[in-house]
Amino acid sequence: MTGNTSETAALDGAALPQQDIRRVRSNPDFWYPVAWSRELRRGRAIGVRYAGQPIVVVRPEAGAIFALDDVCPHRQLPLSKGVVCGDFIRCAYHGLKYSRRGQCFSPGMKLENEPPRLRTWACREKDGLIFVFMGDLEKSDSIALPDIPRVRDPHYRTRRFGKVVQCHYSFMHENLMDMNHQILHSRLVGSMKPRFLGMDRGEDFVEARYTFARTSGRQPLSEALIYGQRRKDGRDFAYRDVMTIRTQYPYQTLQIETEGIDEPVMELWIAYVPQDREELTNRVFGLLSIRRLKIPFLLDLAWPLLIAFTERVFTEDREIVELEQQAWREQDGDRNQEVFPVIMALRQLLIQNGMPSRKDIG
Amino acid sequence: MTGNTSETAALDGAALPQQDIRRVRSNPDFWYPVAWSRELRRGRAIGVRYAGQPIVVVRPEAGAIFALDDVCPHRQLPLSKGVVCGDFIRCAYHGLKYSRRGQCFSPGMKLENEPPRLRTWACREKDGLIFVFMGDLEKSDSIALPDIPRVRDPHYRTRRFGKVVQCHYSFMHENLMDMNHQILHSRLVGSMKPRFLGMDRGEDFVEARYTFARTSGRQPLSEALIYGQRRKDGRDFAYRDVMTIRTQYPYQTLQIETEGIDEPVMELWIAYVPQDREELTNRVFGLLSIRRLKIPFLLDLAWPLLIAFTERVFTEDREIVELEQQAWREQDGDRNQEVFPVIMALRQLLIQNGMPSRKDIG
Amino acid sequence: MTGNTSETAALDGAALPQQDIRRVRSNPDFWYPVAWSRELRRGRAIGVRYAGQPIVVVRPEAGAIFALDDVCPHRQLPLSKGVVCGDFIRCAYHGLKYSRRGQCFSPGMKLENEPPRLRTWACREKDGLIFVFMGDLEKSDSIALPDIPRVRDPHYRTRRFGKVVQCHYSFMHENLMDMNHQILHSRLVGSMKPRFLGMDRGEDFVEARYTFARTSGRQPLSEALIYGQRRKDGRDFAYRDVMTIRTQYPYQTLQIETEGIDEPVMELWIAYVPQDREELTNRVFGLLSIRRLKIPFLLDLAWPLLIAFTERVFTEDREIVELEQQAWREQDGDRNQEVFPVIMALRQLLIQNGMPSRKDIG
Repeated sequence: MTGNTSETAALDGAALPQQDIRRVRSNPDFWYPVAWSRELRRGRAIGVRYAGQPIVVVRPEAGAIFALDDVCPHRQLPLSKGVVCGDFIRCAYHGLKYSRRGQCFSPGMKLENEPPRLRTWACREKDGLIFVFMGDLEKSDSIALPDIPRVRDPHYRTRRFGKVVQCHYSFMHENLMDMNHQILHSRLVGSMKPRFLGMDRGEDFVEARYTFARTSGRQPLSEALIYGQRRKDGRDFAYRDVMTIRTQYPYQTLQIETEGIDEPVMELWIAYVPQDREELTNRVFGLLSIRRLKIPFLLDLAWPLLIAFTERVFTEDREIVELEQQAWREQDGDRNQEVFPVIMALRQLLIQNGMPSRKDIG
Repeated sequence: MTGNTSETAALDGAALPQQDIRRVRSNPDFWYPVAWSRELRRGRAIGVRYAGQPIVVVRPEAGAIFALDDVCPHRQLPLSKGVVCGDFIRCAYHGLKYSRRGQCFSPGMKLENEPPRLRTWACREKDGLIFVFMGDLEKSDSIALPDIPRVRDPHYRTRRFGKVVQCHYSFMHENLMDMNHQILHSRLVGSMKPRFLGMDRGEDFVEARYTFARTSGRQPLSEALIYGQRRKDGRDFAYRDVMTIRTQYPYQTLQIETEGIDEPVMELWIAYVPQDREELTNRVFGLLSIRRLKIPFLLDLAWPLLIAFTERVFTEDREIVELEQQAWREQDGDRNQEVFPVIMALRQLLIQNGMPSRKDIG
Repeated sequence: MTGNTSETAALDGAALPQQDIRRVRSNPDFWYPVAWSRELRRGRAIGVRYAGQPIVVVRPEAGAIFALDDVCPHRQLPLSKGVVCGDFIRCAYHGLKYSRRGQCFSPGMKLENEPPRLRTWACREKDGLIFVFMGDLEKSDSIALPDIPRVRDPHYRTRRFGKVVQCHYSFMHENLMDMNHQILHSRLVGSMKPRFLGMDRGEDFVEARYTFARTSGRQPLSEALIYGQRRKDGRDFAYRDVMTIRTQYPYQTLQIETEGIDEPVMELWIAYVPQDREELTNRVFGLLSIRRLKIPFLLDLAWPLLIAFTERVFTEDREIVELEQQAWREQDGDRNQEVFPVIMALRQLLIQNGMPSRKDIG
């Protein structure tokens, strides 16, 4: 390498900080989804996690949801095992009640010490998702909730999906961003040859664009449904579509645009929320919006097929990233020999926007 | 706090020794139950544990039971996997035989070294329980076996119950002693308002007395059976009964007395025997004795109902104490903010009568 | 002990090196079986292990099998999850292809770094077994594959068996070599009294010879089939047969010869292949060859019975050695008080031919 510009230096693996990317913690100064709205009925509470911190989200019979530490200070039991009474959450064991401000009201117990007070967490609901803000509370007002407009757009139908995946969130970002892994899904989608069109990057994002040509195999019906029609001109899927994948820290999106249609035919918004303290598991919250077809209800008819198709793709990806995490454990650290500039840029983004591992800061 | 008497100082959390109560080991200088008599038939052996020590209890075809280390010195196999031959226990693998005094008799093997000798443990049987004494053998004669007279009293019928519970024994003592947790069982027993009547304490015991009023819900049939009748005077369960809970180290009892009956309507004797070396699991041995009713056989008829009722209460308690233990693990130690003087006294009792944790003594 | 010859000194436990035999690693300079030939069809790959090292064995559509590290250097995924294409194995994730020499061929990816190269392992096939050589590659040509001639001898029928057993391989060697454990199988074979006839030992082997007398119980039918007939002369199994057990490092054999028949009635060849890095689990590859009887097809008719019989013996042994391993874990090391000279010699053999534990060499 002769011309050592700052850009190539930044992309050069050797210049990266000596951090194991699988130990980088997510930055808490963002709104993270922790549950689907439909999981939490009126008068109920739910126990969720962000990076090892247990949180109880309460939906009282009336009024907005609220979030507290999911630990009763008296005996450390999860409050989410308790019962919602009016605007309070009551511990299952001795019945200590806590308000939305975390104040304790103790029925019939003569407390000798000052009643304990629970930590509260900023908590909002939008587009069918429940979000919490676990970072610096003062920032919570200035940091916007993610915007997912297709969810509310009648021209699209949206599928909500997600599972707990046993790996660090960085594996998820890399999996979606690196379209050279199409071969993994060849049994489902046939042989697809990706062509990398270019990338953009900034302080808080990396974006990659691809197009595809089908090299063998028939286009599956489910895919045809996304593109609105089966192509009859023999140029089936041949570099007519553009797929844009973007990690806008800490979220990720994927958009497919095709010739002759103004709006994207598909848009995916996805977040990977660390569950345990080491952040080696994550819960996925995905919103997959597909543009409705010209023939009314056709998309609805085909919906079960689309669900099955996307579920299988997701399952294949999940198996792979969990194998990657398993290899990381066996080899006691990251041994990846990454060569694709997009992924090298993505790794740098995740490290620079994330938090150093507890190990590195002592 | 202005008047700082020695009593309040002793109750004050800050004055307690800086020990994590969940690490305090049980004192071995007592008789601990390790099995029910009915579990061990003639000519059989059973493998049990006390605080990580494997013990084999043998019931020969003739004569009294005996207890040895459950490890064959030759190849370290559990002798309890072997066979009882006459007054000997024979190892399953190579057939080495051990007497009740732990002496080895080796069939057909030319031993070059001195035959190994097994440790023996004092072992007695009473009231359907098999007890061992794991402490200083010289003390075993002066320390009495626990007395549970109701078991032999024809006016009572006794239920034996117990399971392995995944928690430190101290959680069990606290659970039973703190009647403010009635709310946990409200689905089973309705709303009960406990009134704390007072406590007594000594070097080796803590005793608390309560009475109750039903605030809502109907008295369950199973409960009525214990009290002999459904109350018709509208004062249903209103402060007419006294419940006395006593930890007489290391055992625990619960007694209910009611107006107009000389003897208790119910008496529970219960022991929590640490299983693993860290003493974070315990096996429960409970004897629940209920006074027979005036109508003969009525209690026997209702027995299955009573079993189901007590089993469900026990299950609710078990779930709670296991959640407490789990929180202790996650938080890496005891974070309880205990405020109830009875429980604070009980914790002190368990610490002072128990053994310091291995961690603390190095 | 008065006469302290060098021989007795060598057998004396105190004179043994202070190594825990359960930490001694197997010597990699031998051919170890890692799979049955029938497990690996044409055009397929299989993932196996030797002492923690993951290996992929590939059987291309044409040509001989080959073995590589089962880790794609790009993202550390097991290549055995991939697909065989011609003479290549292709990674499931991004499609990187590797030749039998471990060279990487990358389809459509612009690699900036030198393509990574995988380690290859010597790999051969014989008698229905796939062997690898994990030691010094230069030695692989001079070290012979094990010879198991009965497998190819039409006078014998051979059963292949094996499972993963959760113990160090040394427990397996000791189990088979010490015939004083016949008592373990007394429910299956009746009471057998072993008589030790003597032993031989050399730098790389220990051999023990026994004969047996039945002391009670009837000879099982399955056993009679091995010996060709039920003995009618009342001397049933009384010291007429000789059983020879030999550990020829690292393999083991067992042979039974009986009066009046020139060739052995039974021959067992068995290998124990460490699976994990600590070598505390092993996969068993056993070949049990039984001489055909005079009446044609009688052995074939009885075959299912023989399989069931040997399977039950193997299961009893497996339970025992896994209990031994469990005791080793609980006691945090080897506490065996071995007294039988054959086993003491065998332990010495395994230590001297094996590799020091990683712990001991730092």
